[in-house]
Amino acid sequence: MLVLRKPYLLYVGDAALKTDCKTAFGLRDWCPQQVIGEWSRPNAPVTLGLTRLSPEQAAARGAGSLIVGVAPIGGRLPDHWLPDLEAALEAGLDVVSGLHSRLTSFPRLVSQAERRGVKLHDVRSSYLHQTVANGRKRSGKRLLTVGTDCALGKKYTALALARELSTRGVRATFRATGQTGIMIAGSGIPMDAQVADFLAGAAEALSPDNDSAHWDLIEGQGSLFHPAYAAVTLGLLQGSQPDAIVLCHAPERLHIDEYPDYPLPPLREVIDTYLAAGRLTNRAIRCIGLSINSCALDDAAWHAYRTQQERELQMPVCDPMRGGVAPLAQALQTL
Amino acid sequence: MLVLRKPYLLYVGDAALKTDCKTAFGLRDWCPQQVIGEWSRPNAPVTLGLTRLSPEQAAARGAGSLIVGVAPIGGRLPDHWLPDLEAALEAGLDVVSGLHSRLTSFPRLVSQAERRGVKLHDVRSSYLHQTVANGRKRSGKRLLTVGTDCALGKKYTALALARELSTRGVRATFRATGQTGIMIAGSGIPMDAQVADFLAGAAEALSPDNDSAHWDLIEGQGSLFHPAYAAVTLGLLQGSQPDAIVLCHAPERLHIDEYPDYPLPPLREVIDTYLAAGRLTNRAIRCIGLSINSCALDDAAWHAYRTQQERELQMPVCDPMRGGVAPLAQALQTL
Repeated sequence: MLVLRKPYLLYVGDAALKTDCKTAFGLRDWCPQQVIGEWSRPNAPVTLGLTRLSPEQAAARGAGSLIVGVAPIGGRLPDHWLPDLEAALEAGLDVVSGLHSRLTSFPRLVSQAERRGVKLHDVRSSYLHQTVANGRKRSGKRLLTVGTDCALGKKYTALALARELSTRGVRATFRATGQTGIMIAGSGIPMDAQVADFLAGAAEALSPDNDSAHWDLIEGQGSLFHPAYAAVTLGLLQGSQPDAIVLCHAPERLHIDEYPDYPLPPLREVIDTYLAAGRLTNRAIRCIGLSINSCALDDAAWHAYRTQQERELQMPVCDPMRGGVAPLAQALQTL
Repeated sequence: MLVLRKPYLLYVGDAALKTDCKTAFGLRDWCPQQVIGEWSRPNAPVTLGLTRLSPEQAAARGAGSLIVGVAPIGGRLPDHWLPDLEAALEAGLDVVSGLHSRLTSFPRLVSQAERRGVKLHDVRSSYLHQTVANGRKRSGKRLLTVGTDCALGKKYTALALARELSTRGVRATFRATGQTGIMIAGSGIPMDAQVADFLAGAAEALSPDNDSAHWDLIEGQGSLFHPAYAAVTLGLLQGSQPDAIVLCHAPERLHIDEYPDYPLPPLREVIDTYLAAGRLTNRAIRCIGLSINSCALDDAAWHAYRTQQERELQMPVCDPMRGGVAPLAQALQTL
């Protein structure tokens, strides 16, 4: 598993737009207790509203890593940011990035990290799992968030459930499978970067044996109905061996995003397809509810939609951003 | 797509056992017109029964590549074979290997290949496809061989069908997805080595648009019932968009090989699972027959098994090694 050194100093360079800095804002909001400040180029247009600390100051306060919290179009690391990353390495911080252009492709950063005994983490790709899945049943309990499509709340739902269960005194761990999730959790496995033969093996390693009452809340990826990413979804599903799934959906999504020829089937069919595929490695898998990203609906429409789905599917329907996930946590606790 | 330079000089080093040389024997048997000789260490225990040619002699006769036709336990390249590979590069041949230890991990081979302007091909891994699947329907027709498990005749069946269709005057191309298949075809994409996000995209690239009457016969990989490799199988299935599948099976196989906790379901259920998953990218997918590896059955048992399966499943049942695949080709031609 990829493990990051916390707490974090968040770096946004001189990114022009707040939306380019959504990784940094996500970390500020989801793990504030692990973020000790922000750093950027002089006159940077965007601020996170945190204490401004240089890498040296952050290191003195115990920081473990500088996180490049920016995802600009194209994903390139601008050359004029390099001196700031070098300053971080010099101060003894690891440097973590989710950009497409790899930190390890800059020889100066590589040699400097080596000299200082610190690490460069390209979260998208730097952890490659190398063992084949064994299919053995593991101890402990697991929930995987699955979706009708990408980008409709699978990470958010798993995080919200981990938090809700902890509040209820249930031992629970969020398991991250994508770059932002890994930065939030401080560890995880980037599923989409794995070699195909080792994908299910990576999912097995992500949620190892645990106490029988412990829940792993595993961040889902992609969709079994996605013509490009269904294989990632299947490897994660079967390697995770989940006891429970929560289906994530956005009601206005009628087809796979950017694939208009791929309409989404009825939710009942979506659920049945996930359960059939998941049964290969866990005969007892069940769907305990729906997590809906309802931001496109007004209050009346959301209420009507929720009532209708609950009646049709006979399971709790929540929006984590609109009332929380208590009904899902409750359903889990009865398993 | 990975493209190899033919014809081949087959190299077996000083491998102790014939079974270690099955790649070389497979090439000798499946593409004899593309093999111009063999080479090995002095006093090598195994011979392929071909003309013995040094790399220089083979190059003079027009050879394009030296193939390391050996898959020893562990997959390491013995150091004392390196001088022979260097002689091949010096003679202007590409060197091709399917071993786990990569040719490109030997700096001397890399610099020599560069200097001579020839190539090192690690067939297991050297071609990495980098685009995401688009899910667009392609022209031409496609058949994918699928299986209840690994290693029961998917490559062999696709090769036999390509040959049978060509004999019948149907334009047909074998599409290779594993290392031995790629060596036989001289091109292909190693599916199990691809990055998970690009797996379906690689399968799309493998069988591009073609004439409407042309058939691609695509070598299947893994099994949807395999707890480690089902993701590879799904990405290949959905990216291939097959019009037809042939299910490959061995009757004595009762569970996934080396996974005794994973029993194989009834063949009808296996077929339905493949068709349901394949329908995502081709609504018209159908199963046109079974290809059985019947080597564990005597003649009477094979006759009884075949009759029973044909009656139960209402489709032709063949063993490519025992009577050929004419009934499958016939079924294809009616599509």
